[in-house]
Amino acid sequence: MGKLAREVSIIGVGMTGFGKHPDKTIKDLAREAAWAAIDDSGVDPRRIQTIYCGNSVEGLLSGQEDVRGQVVMRDAGLAGRPVVNTPNACASSSTALREAWLAIASGLYDIALAVGFEKLFVGDTAKTTRALATCTDVEVEGNLGVFFPGMYAMEAKRYMYETGCTKEQIAKVTVKNHRNGCLNPHAQIRHEVTVEQVLNAKMIADPITLYMCSPIGDGGAAAILCAKEIAHRFRSDPIHVAAIGMASGAYQDIAIDRKTPTSTEMAAEESFEISGVGPEDVDLAEIHSAFSPAEYTFFEELGFCARGEAPQFLEEGKTEISGSIPINTSGGLESKGHPVGATGLAMVHEVVIQLRGQAGARQVSNPRVGLVHNGGGLIGGDNAVMCVHILKR
Amino acid sequence: MGKLAREVSIIGVGMTGFGKHPDKTIKDLAREAAWAAIDDSGVDPRRIQTIYCGNSVEGLLSGQEDVRGQVVMRDAGLAGRPVVNTPNACASSSTALREAWLAIASGLYDIALAVGFEKLFVGDTAKTTRALATCTDVEVEGNLGVFFPGMYAMEAKRYMYETGCTKEQIAKVTVKNHRNGCLNPHAQIRHEVTVEQVLNAKMIADPITLYMCSPIGDGGAAAILCAKEIAHRFRSDPIHVAAIGMASGAYQDIAIDRKTPTSTEMAAEESFEISGVGPEDVDLAEIHSAFSPAEYTFFEELGFCARGEAPQFLEEGKTEISGSIPINTSGGLESKGHPVGATGLAMVHEVVIQLRGQAGARQVSNPRVGLVHNGGGLIGGDNAVMCVHILKR
Repeated sequence: MGKLAREVSIIGVGMTGFGKHPDKTIKDLAREAAWAAIDDSGVDPRRIQTIYCGNSVEGLLSGQEDVRGQVVMRDAGLAGRPVVNTPNACASSSTALREAWLAIASGLYDIALAVGFEKLFVGDTAKTTRALATCTDVEVEGNLGVFFPGMYAMEAKRYMYETGCTKEQIAKVTVKNHRNGCLNPHAQIRHEVTVEQVLNAKMIADPITLYMCSPIGDGGAAAILCAKEIAHRFRSDPIHVAAIGMASGAYQDIAIDRKTPTSTEMAAEESFEISGVGPEDVDLAEIHSAFSPAEYTFFEELGFCARGEAPQFLEEGKTEISGSIPINTSGGLESKGHPVGATGLAMVHEVVIQLRGQAGARQVSNPRVGLVHNGGGLIGGDNAVMCVHILKR
Repeated sequence: MGKLAREVSIIGVGMTGFGKHPDKTIKDLAREAAWAAIDDSGVDPRRIQTIYCGNSVEGLLSGQEDVRGQVVMRDAGLAGRPVVNTPNACASSSTALREAWLAIASGLYDIALAVGFEKLFVGDTAKTTRALATCTDVEVEGNLGVFFPGMYAMEAKRYMYETGCTKEQIAKVTVKNHRNGCLNPHAQIRHEVTVEQVLNAKMIADPITLYMCSPIGDGGAAAILCAKEIAHRFRSDPIHVAAIGMASGAYQDIAIDRKTPTSTEMAAEESFEISGVGPEDVDLAEIHSAFSPAEYTFFEELGFCARGEAPQFLEEGKTEISGSIPINTSGGLESKGHPVGATGLAMVHEVVIQLRGQAGARQVSNPRVGLVHNGGGLIGGDNAVMCVHILKR
């Protein structure tokens, strides 16, 4: 890895409420998120020089197969500039952020906009589910009926077998994240659940029950980035993008005796190398919890604790808002919602407002370093995409 | 515009033959192109640090809606690294090149791979045509039956009305490009046509006849980029990426009395500003000729001559391989073919081998500066995406 030619800051974030928005298209979601970020930054929108747009499956839902970013940005009044589309499954807008970061680091552009948007609620769950199933190798997995809940369930079963983790302990992730989500006005699902309710809910793929699954919903999220040296012109509290690591590879480790690192481990390693930060320096993290058991495995792969220890961390309260390493203060994907293309920048939104001290009822005490982990794509094989961002106050 | 933190070179190019490949999937096309570029560069593939993949409409053709790059790169034996998908209609792999260029310019990565691939021939022309129609604002244009041949025809009609250009003069573009394509072993259509044959061919959308249209076909193309300071370790003849300009906006100018620049004019302006090169310095260019009349209008928008003069340039032989500003020595999109996601990097392939002096029977005499113009997306409105690359020996 070389050294970044110049540093980059986030000076604006914005997002829509996540949820079912039958009256909104991707144009509405992207416009609302982009302008919220612009307003938050104080940047004259005419100074935005380049734009990155993350969306995953709109082609199969509305038929807008390509040039999605151009279409929504023109509608938002932001035509003219370069617009790059960065579909990467659940990591689509994490990828948009990475490319905006590199574009500014290159020296060529000073101010960039990254936007994520997804409209999953089209009144046809089967259609949405089929579309999401194409974030796999369709020739090998997607067309064979191998889909996310089943793969996450297999991962969870293996994890339980190896570590002794119980269903109750998995349900406690769901309980924590729903409790956090109640404090987040942008969250899709804002009610608490008990361990009993989680375990007695409809079984989706053993051990995963309904409440352990992220819901189908719509949303947009955005960020304004600029060169660090000019960030103070716009805000007194810019957030430094200390690193973005990225990898493709195994989604999680379901292979017995696997000797090679997972994509999360590779992305985290890259991110820690670039930033000089280690997991022990991180004050809070948003972790990709499309299904609750994943919070444990990713927590461990990120280096926050040793293999098999994550449930104990949660039960001791360490991953609570008041704990030593709060995880998914936003409510996580189960409660906040998971409109896939918007998820990465919504996670960034959460960490940025936490680092600014603007998170209200769910504010973590004085955080200085935040981590965003987000990934998607194929679960089997070696085809996932994983991003780890490290943000600093 | 700021200054690039460091310069970038192209040290390897590769492409498949363009054409109908019923036995090949996008995996085959991407693998073949990527490894041709790797072999051409002499780089140890383990040293490739980041990958960009351009593809436009595979989601609607095979159902591989997302993570296309991860799927094909894993198949090619190149998993592990960051893989970013950059769909941008016909400019998908031009965008991949731009992002690879910025990633290296940022200082973080030293060696990157950009790949474009597209499989349009699926034995169902209507299906392919419908998929391509979604490279528009589907809500406004795509679902209303407004499609590329018709829009290009309207552009051509307006151009003919304003400048006096004749159908015969448009046909001469087709004739030139087919003649060049006969000299290109990668071209899909390798036979000459006469003005009479072009004008008497099946009418698609007046004045555009069958031979004036790029054919449906499959292909892949790739490039290896690295930091300029290390390029000589791999090849004695690296090609310098002097600039990549990009814009979204009007595809061509069909608005009467339009006062704002087209996306080609904006992208060219950015490219000339970054590189310090002007149109008068360009020794050859590949221009997006998905339909023959566009070669004239884009030639003029790029600043090679004044409005309405392009037909005269062609008739005087200036745009021939032997002329002062050879255009589409590869055969252009009508003859070489136009598997959309592969097109941008195939154009780069042509200019790179021309600048190296490796173009064989179609070699331009001693070129030093080449330009690649490629764009796609919506024709109406202000939603197109346009890229202009300037490459130097």
